[in-house]
Amino acid sequence: MAEKWYEKSGEQGGAVVSSRIRLARNLRKYPFPNKASLEQKREIAQSVKRAIEESNSVLSNKLSFISMEELNQTQAVSLVEKHLISPEFAADRAGRYLMLSDDESISIMINEEDHIRIQVIDSGLSLDGAYDTANNIDTLLDEALGFAFNDKLGYLTQCPTNLGTGMRASLMLHIPAIERSRSVRRIAGNLTKLGMELRGTFGEGSDAKGALYQLSNRITLGLSEHTAIENLKNIASQIIEQERKSLEELAKGAELQDAVYRSLAVLKSARLMSNDEAMKLLSNVRIGMTTGLIERKDFAALNRMNEQVQPATLMTANKRDMQPQERDIERARLLREEFKDY
Amino acid sequence: MAEKWYEKSGEQGGAVVSSRIRLARNLRKYPFPNKASLEQKREIAQSVKRAIEESNSVLSNKLSFISMEELNQTQAVSLVEKHLISPEFAADRAGRYLMLSDDESISIMINEEDHIRIQVIDSGLSLDGAYDTANNIDTLLDEALGFAFNDKLGYLTQCPTNLGTGMRASLMLHIPAIERSRSVRRIAGNLTKLGMELRGTFGEGSDAKGALYQLSNRITLGLSEHTAIENLKNIASQIIEQERKSLEELAKGAELQDAVYRSLAVLKSARLMSNDEAMKLLSNVRIGMTTGLIERKDFAALNRMNEQVQPATLMTANKRDMQPQERDIERARLLREEFKDY
Repeated sequence: MAEKWYEKSGEQGGAVVSSRIRLARNLRKYPFPNKASLEQKREIAQSVKRAIEESNSVLSNKLSFISMEELNQTQAVSLVEKHLISPEFAADRAGRYLMLSDDESISIMINEEDHIRIQVIDSGLSLDGAYDTANNIDTLLDEALGFAFNDKLGYLTQCPTNLGTGMRASLMLHIPAIERSRSVRRIAGNLTKLGMELRGTFGEGSDAKGALYQLSNRITLGLSEHTAIENLKNIASQIIEQERKSLEELAKGAELQDAVYRSLAVLKSARLMSNDEAMKLLSNVRIGMTTGLIERKDFAALNRMNEQVQPATLMTANKRDMQPQERDIERARLLREEFKDY
Repeated sequence: MAEKWYEKSGEQGGAVVSSRIRLARNLRKYPFPNKASLEQKREIAQSVKRAIEESNSVLSNKLSFISMEELNQTQAVSLVEKHLISPEFAADRAGRYLMLSDDESISIMINEEDHIRIQVIDSGLSLDGAYDTANNIDTLLDEALGFAFNDKLGYLTQCPTNLGTGMRASLMLHIPAIERSRSVRRIAGNLTKLGMELRGTFGEGSDAKGALYQLSNRITLGLSEHTAIENLKNIASQIIEQERKSLEELAKGAELQDAVYRSLAVLKSARLMSNDEAMKLLSNVRIGMTTGLIERKDFAALNRMNEQVQPATLMTANKRDMQPQERDIERARLLREEFKDY
């Protein structure tokens, strides 16, 4: 099996868990998905599949074609937990298809809000790399299928907020020190004025789990992809610097050390572990690795665990439905195994 | 330094932390302490000291004579924490003296509520042994000093509830499973009818810390020491059996295992530890040792830590006043050190 994107530590792995680029695209020849028939949706999916397969690029071997209708609810939710598809895409699976790379870094949602949503995700701070990959897929599909594009409005999308580049660039930030100082809301407010957004772990309206926040651009019209990404990187570096300073301050106190060492100890020992607690403890261990309190610096282990402890992902890996306490036992076992040599 | 009583595991160390015998005695020649002058109290103390020293028994080398007036508040409270003196004895130290054995198993409070309170404490279930020791001291002092005794009322004591044998026998029980089943209050109610008492860790009106409860006799008049001790042992064995069964049941569930392994992990790792949390975690580790979840069975370590983590005892050992957070840091350090090889 290919090493998953989240099994790599990445740049700035203490503060940046992952970088993500998403491009919204629609085919000229078809109405938007909300107006398209099931038949048309299947045609769209087949044409995307064919375009990839016939491209003779490395992609043709790496991407699997998945009919969402053939997944059960748990498998679909697991893809949401891994940030590979949107919750909406999992909720209504009729006429929807997914192309997914074996390392889970590339996912193409077909017939979500738009015909095509190309998403590339990579560990750590790696927006440029993720954009390059997304851009290559974009070019390949555009040449084969013809995207709806207007000189004034850019790429045409079902929701006007995506007009223009159709690009959303986002970073999953780990900012526990900022969170503890209770300044997330203030920072999020300021970012809105700058056309950026800081949200919970699973997007709009969701809570932040394990001090993970999504930073992303809101504006897609009137500025280039390059500019949008540069703006995001600038803002991110300010947030990362603020986080670093706050964390340095906190690391002087006994409370943070206590939280870090307790968290690692509990991960190594617990026999029952809820999802929320796991996320919190993993966050504390990330703090430990970032500050040097924990010597072994393996952000990849944390990235991997952040995914694997999620309920649907846990059940998918175990190939069966599990009661909440069974999950808590299995989650605890998984974490003990992962951290046993720390 | 002599090995302290609490550094031994003792019989039934999972359920019985310690056994204690206390005898209340008064000298014929003097009024009760509440009526005695300071001069008379000093005379009483000197005569007890002399009686011990001149006894030529092993006691004369083992017991130190301490003027309570020369102790500071922290040192006095530490003696309360170790159950060597009563809170009242620590609160007002004028004219009060203590004879204390180097292993802290024997303490003689002079001029508490009665002229003499002989106390013998031992680890585990060991009431007979403790009584024998107390009885020897009693005989020695009676022969030298002459105790107030009445054929009908037995030993005369200031408070009528101690008339008769003047003996209180007590066991410090560790009954976490009974506590979790919320039946302590019911059991305590039933025991009252049988002339017994089940109270919190530090006696009347105190909360139970770390699931530790004092079981003791209430009746001293009309039955012999031997009968009172046998009654107490019978009741204790029923409680211990109930605890054992409840614990066996609980040990089947993942919750108890989880609590045991987490608790040991946190004791090995924390950098800050409150007194209450320490008592709770030590209780969980005792459960682990009792049920075999933790292989290394060292109740003595738990007994020792139960004493050493107490705030005044901690400060006395460090020979200085400490702020609450300093104590929490030192307590955590002490516990990490104690459990590092588990």
